[in-house]
Amino acid sequence: MADPRFHIKAGPLTVARLCDIAGAELITPEFGERIIEDVAALSTAGAGDIAFHEGAKNLADLKATKAGACLLAQAARHALPDGVAGLIAAEPQRAFSHVIDAFYPRAISPGISERAAIDRSAQIGAGVQIEAGVVIGANAEIGAGTILRPGVVIEPGVKIGCDGYIGPNVSIRSAIIGDRVMLHGGVGIGHDGYGFAMGMAGHRKLQQLGRVILGDDVEIGANTTVDRGALGDTVIGDGTKIDNLVMIGHNCQVGKHCIITAQCGLAGSAILEDFVVMGAQSGILGHVTVGAGSMLAGRAAAKDDLPPGGVYGGAPAKPVKVWMREMAAIALLGKQRNKKKT
Amino acid sequence: MADPRFHIKAGPLTVARLCDIAGAELITPEFGERIIEDVAALSTAGAGDIAFHEGAKNLADLKATKAGACLLAQAARHALPDGVAGLIAAEPQRAFSHVIDAFYPRAISPGISERAAIDRSAQIGAGVQIEAGVVIGANAEIGAGTILRPGVVIEPGVKIGCDGYIGPNVSIRSAIIGDRVMLHGGVGIGHDGYGFAMGMAGHRKLQQLGRVILGDDVEIGANTTVDRGALGDTVIGDGTKIDNLVMIGHNCQVGKHCIITAQCGLAGSAILEDFVVMGAQSGILGHVTVGAGSMLAGRAAAKDDLPPGGVYGGAPAKPVKVWMREMAAIALLGKQRNKKKT
Amino acid sequence: MADPRFHIKAGPLTVARLCDIAGAELITPEFGERIIEDVAALSTAGAGDIAFHEGAKNLADLKATKAGACLLAQAARHALPDGVAGLIAAEPQRAFSHVIDAFYPRAISPGISERAAIDRSAQIGAGVQIEAGVVIGANAEIGAGTILRPGVVIEPGVKIGCDGYIGPNVSIRSAIIGDRVMLHGGVGIGHDGYGFAMGMAGHRKLQQLGRVILGDDVEIGANTTVDRGALGDTVIGDGTKIDNLVMIGHNCQVGKHCIITAQCGLAGSAILEDFVVMGAQSGILGHVTVGAGSMLAGRAAAKDDLPPGGVYGGAPAKPVKVWMREMAAIALLGKQRNKKKT
Repeated sequence: MADPRFHIKAGPLTVARLCDIAGAELITPEFGERIIEDVAALSTAGAGDIAFHEGAKNLADLKATKAGACLLAQAARHALPDGVAGLIAAEPQRAFSHVIDAFYPRAISPGISERAAIDRSAQIGAGVQIEAGVVIGANAEIGAGTILRPGVVIEPGVKIGCDGYIGPNVSIRSAIIGDRVMLHGGVGIGHDGYGFAMGMAGHRKLQQLGRVILGDDVEIGANTTVDRGALGDTVIGDGTKIDNLVMIGHNCQVGKHCIITAQCGLAGSAILEDFVVMGAQSGILGHVTVGAGSMLAGRAAAKDDLPPGGVYGGAPAKPVKVWMREMAAIALLGKQRNKKKT
Repeated sequence: MADPRFHIKAGPLTVARLCDIAGAELITPEFGERIIEDVAALSTAGAGDIAFHEGAKNLADLKATKAGACLLAQAARHALPDGVAGLIAAEPQRAFSHVIDAFYPRAISPGISERAAIDRSAQIGAGVQIEAGVVIGANAEIGAGTILRPGVVIEPGVKIGCDGYIGPNVSIRSAIIGDRVMLHGGVGIGHDGYGFAMGMAGHRKLQQLGRVILGDDVEIGANTTVDRGALGDTVIGDGTKIDNLVMIGHNCQVGKHCIITAQCGLAGSAILEDFVVMGAQSGILGHVTVGAGSMLAGRAAAKDDLPPGGVYGGAPAKPVKVWMREMAAIALLGKQRNKKKT
Repeated sequence: MADPRFHIKAGPLTVARLCDIAGAELITPEFGERIIEDVAALSTAGAGDIAFHEGAKNLADLKATKAGACLLAQAARHALPDGVAGLIAAEPQRAFSHVIDAFYPRAISPGISERAAIDRSAQIGAGVQIEAGVVIGANAEIGAGTILRPGVVIEPGVKIGCDGYIGPNVSIRSAIIGDRVMLHGGVGIGHDGYGFAMGMAGHRKLQQLGRVILGDDVEIGANTTVDRGALGDTVIGDGTKIDNLVMIGHNCQVGKHCIITAQCGLAGSAILEDFVVMGAQSGILGHVTVGAGSMLAGRAAAKDDLPPGGVYGGAPAKPVKVWMREMAAIALLGKQRNKKKT
């Protein structure tokens, strides 16, 4: 499936072994010794591939699949074609993520390039991979097993945990970063927040004295920026996943396991409690709190605090039913206007 | 016109020669041997400059121009001042683009900096220009005549065609790139798409095993990101031009000759057919198809498939007439509300 | 307050000395010799800290503060707790910015890394700090006291003034930059504007021959892009402050002391007069002028010229009162629709 120019494949693996890896139940034990070579999508999978099906949609794809094996939910079992090894899992996609990792294990080539510039006072953990063009400042700390791709800049004092991946041309300052953190190409962590004493005499800079704290298992997409705190810290909780070109302002407090999709913006001191989901291009005004587990639709703009557990849309963000009703009313009004004219 | 600090000028050229270059018709043959030194805008051009006029607007600028020569359409011929050499072209701006290229030919200084770090297994074409701080990984291929500006990171296996321009601090992984592609400063190609098996147990990463395929003559603006596919590829067709700070999600399929302006976003698996135009800050939801030749207004958000050949606006995007009507209805409603109050 | 991993603190300083630095009036002269060690926020400050209070809000924080000293306005004097040294200033936050600078003076370690690649023809001023991985092209000029962090790319001919800060992995081409300019990590200055002769035969590039001119005291946030002019220049006036992930198109003319917050976009040839304020994620269409001192709400989109001194919101942007009225009318309509249904 994956182009060998870019990805190194392990395996093959038997269906029985994959069932163990996936934590699934094999409902076709007669295929336990079948050899599987790779992962694939349902619609393109062949006899040597394992695929997955999840959700109520795409049952047709499942019925028509040519895969050698398929992870699926109990509810879709009836649609599994004859001859396909069936692996039942409560969350087939999550189970599939383990299967992918078995075929494509994390690749690391420990070593430090002579073309990296590392300050003598920096502490470098065991088994790191540091590529050409990396610059590491004084007293920085890089945890064991962490990969720094070419062109990474680690400013003085920055601390990164173990088994991280820091993509090409990422720059990091004034930050304390947890374990297993992934920062993709061009990410900027800890740059100056937007703080000025504004006025007609010109806007005077307020030095930004805080830090960025990234929890464990945080992942941040390409060219996203997270500014450091002004007085105090900007914090991203464990397990939060941020997409590309997102802006996190100074002193934001983002909880654990939040989902922040592409091109969202959080103004200074915004607060997301745990498990908040932000649709693409949505925004949070400064000092606004979004309650735990709430979801914002794409383009929503939270102007005031939003209670936990709700679904919100629109600008300013309101309960999604209210928003939908307003949009329906506008659509009707437009139609009426059209009739009057004719 | 152009500051010689930054741009190297060729020439001078005669009006007759420029006419050939532009594929234009000289309607003032008495000026064929006039010497032209440079290009300029209509309003600032002097006797040694060639300018252009296109469209129904700015006829006053044409009538008042002091240019030595001017490219213009047949329809504007009546407004050409006496003494200005007139070059008639069907598409004056396109003709002018050839004239610019004659005065400012592509500059390349072949050579490979000693400060570049190039893996021995990489294949480097003839006549490339590779600057200091460039890092090229194993088995990468750089086509003949391609320029890599300082700080470019080419990850292992990446293939770039001929006569490309890769701007400073661009990073590229898992990508196959065509000929004459321009990627401006800070672009990120092929970083991880946003894929997780989400849930209350924490979001588990779905490794991204696909690629990015960029066609010939693609141009991508500064700090834009194009993620690689999850299972399968992200594809940008020949001749498509993308502006700055755009986000193209994993598995998007963008057709040929599309126009994607600044800060647009395409969520995962979005499809643009050929010749689609996206206004600034517009967005396409995941798995949505925009039909060939359709245009989206700025800030439009395509939530459902849009038929080819239409003009759409609003969020969610609808035919521009419907959108305009709704906005007019809202404006009227606001006015009525105001009257009631007073 | 600030983590000594990242920030070097000066001091301590007496209250009397801080009063001089802040240009404030000491209303508790009995505390003039009190020793202050650091700056802090009102709510977290201790006996050795100086904090500030400004505005009508947060009087409770002032009344409860444990700070050793506090900058505040005359109007809040009544809420100053006993035992806290009181420093009265007309603009307490601005006064506080000077206090911060006294405790955290600009840090520069002059010197040029052997790992920087500097063209022989470049002119480097006295007392600069140039870090590893910096690349400086032919005939570039770097003013005295300017800091170039690791990975900065200065393309040929670029001129930067004195006492600037150019953050990690910034790239700059075709630009003339004033004094005391700060460009944070990943900023892209002077890359190609989005100019094409468009058409069904494919879009033909219009070479971008202009420059970027940045005035004195300009500050630009992480991963923002400012494209160079097509024919002519893109100009940012003195003292203008731009946040992260902003897009400034070719030939824009931005006045002095403008405030452009995160993720805003200015299309080509947009004009901001002096002291314009743009809320987050707002946009200006091409060739549109926003008058001096005008303010745009977040997400506003200026489609037509806006008179000076106004406050505008919505898309298209309109006077904020009109916009508010329309939003109220829509909300009412939604409610009425709901009633009808039930």
